[in-house]
Amino acid sequence: MKELKDRILADGKNMGGGILNVNSFLNHQVDCRLMVHIGQELAARFASDGADKILTAEISGIAPALEVGVALGIPVVFARKIWSITMPPDSYERMVPSHTKGTMVQLIVAREFLTPDDKVLIIDDFLASGRTIDALVSLVTESGAQLVGIGAVIEKAFEGGRERLAPLGVPVESVVIIESMENDQIVFR
Amino acid sequence: MKELKDRILADGKNMGGGILNVNSFLNHQVDCRLMVHIGQELAARFASDGADKILTAEISGIAPALEVGVALGIPVVFARKIWSITMPPDSYERMVPSHTKGTMVQLIVAREFLTPDDKVLIIDDFLASGRTIDALVSLVTESGAQLVGIGAVIEKAFEGGRERLAPLGVPVESVVIIESMENDQIVFR
Repeated sequence: MKELKDRILADGKNMGGGILNVNSFLNHQVDCRLMVHIGQELAARFASDGADKILTAEISGIAPALEVGVALGIPVVFARKIWSITMPPDSYERMVPSHTKGTMVQLIVAREFLTPDDKVLIIDDFLASGRTIDALVSLVTESGAQLVGIGAVIEKAFEGGRERLAPLGVPVESVVIIESMENDQIVFR
Repeated sequence: MKELKDRILADGKNMGGGILNVNSFLNHQVDCRLMVHIGQELAARFASDGADKILTAEISGIAPALEVGVALGIPVVFARKIWSITMPPDSYERMVPSHTKGTMVQLIVAREFLTPDDKVLIIDDFLASGRTIDALVSLVTESGAQLVGIGAVIEKAFEGGRERLAPLGVPVESVVIIESMENDQIVFR
């Protein structure tokens, strides 16, 4: 998707250590028009996979997941990271390490929103090490729902997430794939 | 907005103590079609106020703010609640008490995304006590940006948020206003 590649080259900041700062258009300030196009692009790639629900992780997954949900006409569930008194005590939960926060974060989904009847498409902003998405997959598995695909906005191919997710045997699609971020460069596949 | 009132009556849970659980369609699972309609409704109410940026608070503000942003064709900035290594150390920040989390939460906005040139519309999921929105307003004020309006999806009139915000002298619009939640009832204005 040329629009997103151009935007990453223009406004993304390579902060070193494999960290790509896209705060100006994707996950602090959001370019809504770009996000709609990203949603349509991912929706088109999964149009024939029969998903009836999208699962994402708050916070930065919400915007792309919502636009995929709008394009496919299906609801979005976002796993919560902070406990709230509206969440039932028997909710599904997982702990995962966060790359950019430097801590462990919790992912919590109420049981009523993931059921054995659901066909789930997982959407997130980044596919990096794949650990967050892997945790979402394990929530889907525990619930008995069927996983039908995994989509990301930006994949950092050098962090091995695709290899981690390959054994699941579902389509893994990223809007853009970054091959390398060495020497202050951003190289797309 | 009849669609939202009907949905609150059908699927909202009055948990007592003024807590309305709308996890099934608004802030854990999101009905994307309903969220688009909510965004269009709020966008129509603020169409003539000249906003060029929306400010919201993660997490539950992101979905409605995004759909207002899509409808108005302007970007959304979401104040972050958890520090990230992509956030500059001189970011604007405020502490506010959270009703549903039972703790204080932080609101953080990088300076580059709120400037004196911005005309800001604040959007959030709930207008209750108004304290979160008031903290967002104070970030806008500190940045030198101009506040042009405040919009919420659901207003709980009995928590006094509108009175708190009235001195600001900007339009305050809610898609639906709940007058009372006593005795297991939900009464709309």
